[in-house]
Parts: sequence; C-alpha cells; structure tokens
Amino acid sequence: MSNPVLAEVLRGPLVESVHRGAVAVADADGATVLAVGDIAKPVFPRSAVKALQAVALVEAGAADRYALTDEELALACASHSGEPAHIAGVERMLAKAGLDAAALRCGTHWPISQPAAAALARTGAPSALHNNCSGKHAGFLCLACAEGLDPADYFRPQHPVQRAVRAVLKDFSGAVLGEDVCAIDGCSVPTWAVPLDKLARAFAKFGTGHGVSRDRAAACARLSAACARQPWFVAGTGRFCTAIMELFGARVFVKTGAEGVYCGALPELGLGIAVKCDDGAGRAAEAVMAALIARFLPLKATEHEALGRFMRPVLRNWNGFEVGALRLTQAIA
Amino acid sequence: MSNPVLAEVLRGPLVESVHRGAVAVADADGATVLAVGDIAKPVFPRSAVKALQAVALVEAGAADRYALTDEELALACASHSGEPAHIAGVERMLAKAGLDAAALRCGTHWPISQPAAAALARTGAPSALHNNCSGKHAGFLCLACAEGLDPADYFRPQHPVQRAVRAVLKDFSGAVLGEDVCAIDGCSVPTWAVPLDKLARAFAKFGTGHGVSRDRAAACARLSAACARQPWFVAGTGRFCTAIMELFGARVFVKTGAEGVYCGALPELGLGIAVKCDDGAGRAAEAVMAALIARFLPLKATEHEALGRFMRPVLRNWNGFEVGALRLTQAIA
Repeated sequence: MSNPVLAEVLRGPLVESVHRGAVAVADADGATVLAVGDIAKPVFPRSAVKALQAVALVEAGAADRYALTDEELALACASHSGEPAHIAGVERMLAKAGLDAAALRCGTHWPISQPAAAALARTGAPSALHNNCSGKHAGFLCLACAEGLDPADYFRPQHPVQRAVRAVLKDFSGAVLGEDVCAIDGCSVPTWAVPLDKLARAFAKFGTGHGVSRDRAAACARLSAACARQPWFVAGTGRFCTAIMELFGARVFVKTGAEGVYCGALPELGLGIAVKCDDGAGRAAEAVMAALIARFLPLKATEHEALGRFMRPVLRNWNGFEVGALRLTQAIA
Repeated sequence: MSNPVLAEVLRGPLVESVHRGAVAVADADGATVLAVGDIAKPVFPRSAVKALQAVALVEAGAADRYALTDEELALACASHSGEPAHIAGVERMLAKAGLDAAALRCGTHWPISQPAAAALARTGAPSALHNNCSGKHAGFLCLACAEGLDPADYFRPQHPVQRAVRAVLKDFSGAVLGEDVCAIDGCSVPTWAVPLDKLARAFAKFGTGHGVSRDRAAACARLSAACARQPWFVAGTGRFCTAIMELFGARVFVKTGAEGVYCGALPELGLGIAVKCDDGAGRAAEAVMAALIARFLPLKATEHEALGRFMRPVLRNWNGFEVGALRLTQAIA
C-alpha cells in the first residue's frame, strides 16, 4: 500500500509533481495523536536526530568541561550553511578540545549558503569545516577528548562515542537498533533506521524530558534552550529550521534531515513530530512540518500568517516571476 | 491510481527513498511500444523539448543566415553547465545576430558546473549567459533577428518566435496546446503540458523526420547531427546527456528537463522516449532512460557495461565511501 500524496507542486494551471509520505505525531509515552501513511516503517532519520546525538555530549559532562556556549551547542545539533560565523564556531569547539579541522572526518563540501560559497571561492576552497555536519562532528570530538578516548576513529560504529550515541537513540526511540537497520550517513557516521512513530516519540521525550533519566532530561533541556536562543547556528540565513525557531523560540524545535526527513518537538503540548517524504523531497517535508505546527500549536494571527508562507510556498523562476506553488493535500491540511 | 515505483534508493541494507513515474516509448505514427504508468496525463516537458524548440530556428533559415555551427546548434538544444566554452559559444550566437548578453531574458543563475561556478566567483558574478538555457534563448534571438522582428519580448507567448515554437510542438506531438496547459518555464518562456505518449511520439518524429514536412525533417536532421557531433555543448562535463551521446553518437538522442522529465530518440528503431518521475527526481529519470536505451538498442558488450553505471549508480558520501545505490524496479528492468 502506498503512502498518500502530502503535497502537490503546481506550475501554472496544472499539478507538475507530487510528493507522497508519512507523518507521525506522538507523545512521550508513545501514544500516537496523528498517523498519516505507514508510520511503522523504519526510516533513516539522517541529520534530523543531531540533537539526540548531541545528548551524549552533554550528559557525559563534556559540554561543561569545555564550557560549550549556546552557539556551540546549537552547532552540535546543526546542519549549518557554512557561513563564516558557523565556521568560526566549529573552530572554537575544536580548539577547546585541543584539536583543529584536521581531526574532522565528515568529508568536505562547498557551503550550503550560495553567498558563503561564492565568497569562499574568491579566496580558497572548502575544508571539512564547511561540511554542514562539522558542528556535530566537533561535538563528537569534544566527547571523545573529554572522556580521554583516542579521537581518531570517532566516526566508526564501534567507537565508544558512536556506541554512546546509539544508546541514546535506543533509549529515546525504544527501537531495536541492529545491524539490519544500520547504514552510513553522508558524513560517515552510522545512521540507524527507526520506525516513524518511534522517532516522533523520541522527539516528544527530547522536548519534555519525560521518560528519560534526570541527566538525559537535563541534557535535552540545555540543548533545546541553546537551539531556541541561537537558531541561526542550527541552520543559517534564510533556512527553515532557523526561521521557525526564530519565530517560536522554545515553543518549537525543528530539525531537517536528508532525503525528506523532518523531526520536531512541541514541548508545551508534550508532542514529538516525524515526517518522511517517500521520494526524499525536502521541499514537501518543510511545508508539511509548517502545517503540523499550525495544526497543533495555539497561534496568534501573526504567527499563523508567518507559517502560511512555509505551508503554501510560491515558486518563482530566475526572473522572479511567479510560476507556481506548493500546495498541501487533504492528507495534511 | 498511482504510477508504479520505477526506482528505489538504497542506503546500507534498506530502501531509503522511492521514485514513482511513467514511461512511454512510441513510434512516429503514435503506436506505443512501451507504456508504464499513466501515459495519457499531460506533463510539462520543460527543457527536454529544447531540440524541438530549436526546429523553429533552423526551418526558418536563421541557422543558415547566421551560419550557426554544430556547437552553436547544440547550444540551442542545451541545458548547459555554464563552463567557459559554453559561455563563449552563446556569446558568438548573440554576436552573429548583432546582440549581446543584455538581450537575454532567461534570468541569471550560477553555473551548474561546480568548478565553473567556483572559477567564476573568483573574478566576478554570473550573468544571464550562465543560465543553462542561454543557448536556447540565443537561438530564439537569432530567429527573431533573422525574421526582422523586434527581439525585445521574444520570450512572451504572444511573440511570433514563441508562436512558431508552439506550432512545431503542436505538429510534432499532435497535442492540443491551449491556455489550460500553458505555464511559465524556469527561464520565462512558455511551457505547454503534453501527454507523455504524445511526447514520445514527438521525439520519434524528431529522430526520424517521419510525419513532418520536408523542411522540418531537414531541421531535425541538422539538429540531431549537431548534438551527436558536439554532445558536450548539449550539457557539459560529467553530465548524463553528454556522456550518452558521446557513447552512442547519432544512434541516441537524449535530453533532460526539470522536474524529472527525460526525452529521447532511437532513430534506427524509429522510436521516441518520454519519462516523467512523479516527484520531479532527475536521479531516477536518468537511470530509467539508461535502462530504456539498454532495453531497445542492440548493444555491444562494452556499451552495455558503460550503460550499467547509469542504470545502477552507486551512491557515495562526502568521504567517497559507498553508502548505497539506486536500483530500478521490475516496472522498468
């Protein structure tokens, strides 16, 4: 059975493309309050669980030991755009652990930010610092160094850092994370596939601290607060995650992942959210996440209006002409 | 009823994403030899019909008048990568019509080619020349100037250039191209939605010249030969369209379009091909096109092997680690 169409992409008078997918909204006890499509199927959460991966860093005391700031903790949870202040923040994190960019094993790509990429090209070429995952990797390295571990293989599944991360993911999701659901992420760390409903539950726990140990709950609260205070460091200029958390502060946590995944938390409602577009389309997952926030969170008129432009984005061409729109279907709206 | 899954994207042991779509293969008389999914539904062909748009340029005598070379005719059919020789070619086309980049109305974007974009950033910023459609637009401008028309509004639906293009598309596809199926393309010219089976038929006519006037058939032959001799100018370094036409020369014509469209022709078999992925995914459409060539065209072992890497692409991450693969389903394979 196929998942429903969540979003249609219109060009002029016609639907040009469609995006199918599944949505789960759950509380920390695992009760599902919204299920669209197949929410039992394991999905690779990719970068959407960076905040959960960062719980291992904070609960072990590494964030205290290196006096990581809100900006730096937000970077540990980030898929950043590679803008100069992101890079400077990651360099600070590494320096606190006595390391530099040479320790990063995430691989290299040009900054997500087009202006940052163009500026970088004028003077040089990208390094691993510009990889959108470099803040997460700096967090892994801080954890390794704080624990007195050899940081060399910090990205491999058998390294204590990744074993600690896996234990957190298992605790929060309640999912069995065996070899049969393990793959390698774009930045070379392991990624474990988790059923969508359990992913939503994990974020309900992250947003509320319910159902996890006191240390873990404290780590969640510290990371959530850091992201709410420094949302630009979680993504960057013009990005959805940044815009949403600038708009709602601590009321909403959202984080994108590759291949059409979005996760989020609405702490005041005790809810977690997980979205996966079947085809990997980020443009649809973003609009769906905006619609879910609008559906569940009590909003002021101005907030509703601000969310509207993410729920019904207008598509413009290279001349800025309005050529179409993305429209959510009844499966979501 | 939904279209079948054409391709699965695997990460490690699991399917991470899937792409649905439709495929039509037809001859110049409109007989369908392969139909997968809904082939009667109109789809915007976008850049996949640039070669048909260029027929208007050639049949009107503008290509003769300005002595357009194979490189320049290939650029008129191209979604080029914005590499230096592409830009130089488009500048030559414009100069032949007494114009320069200021006449282009396609809008501006950075070169598709990452090395070209980085090199450009070191010394300047992109212009409309770097838009992947600039060669097509230079062709429109050559047509306007050769006909003694005011080129100012050459991109608008009511301009004689676009009316001529529409007449060609109507003749080749046999589709009714009314306002109800007209939208604006990324480069601001009109794009008309055409049922997939009629799009396949249009490319069978393009590849063979059957079923169109002698002048149109001659224009098709000239454009096909130009693309076969200069395939780098149809796309660019490392691109699928270029690689396929380098491999097969005049035996295969292929052209990508935005939002998961691919069109092609197999002239020796009298067949045209049209592919549309429901979700707009180019990665799946490419693999499907490779599989269709392998299915219909008699191949040497080396050609089959060369196609294989496009039919079953390996996915690598930023460190070059193999993390997954794209796999076609039984709907295609």
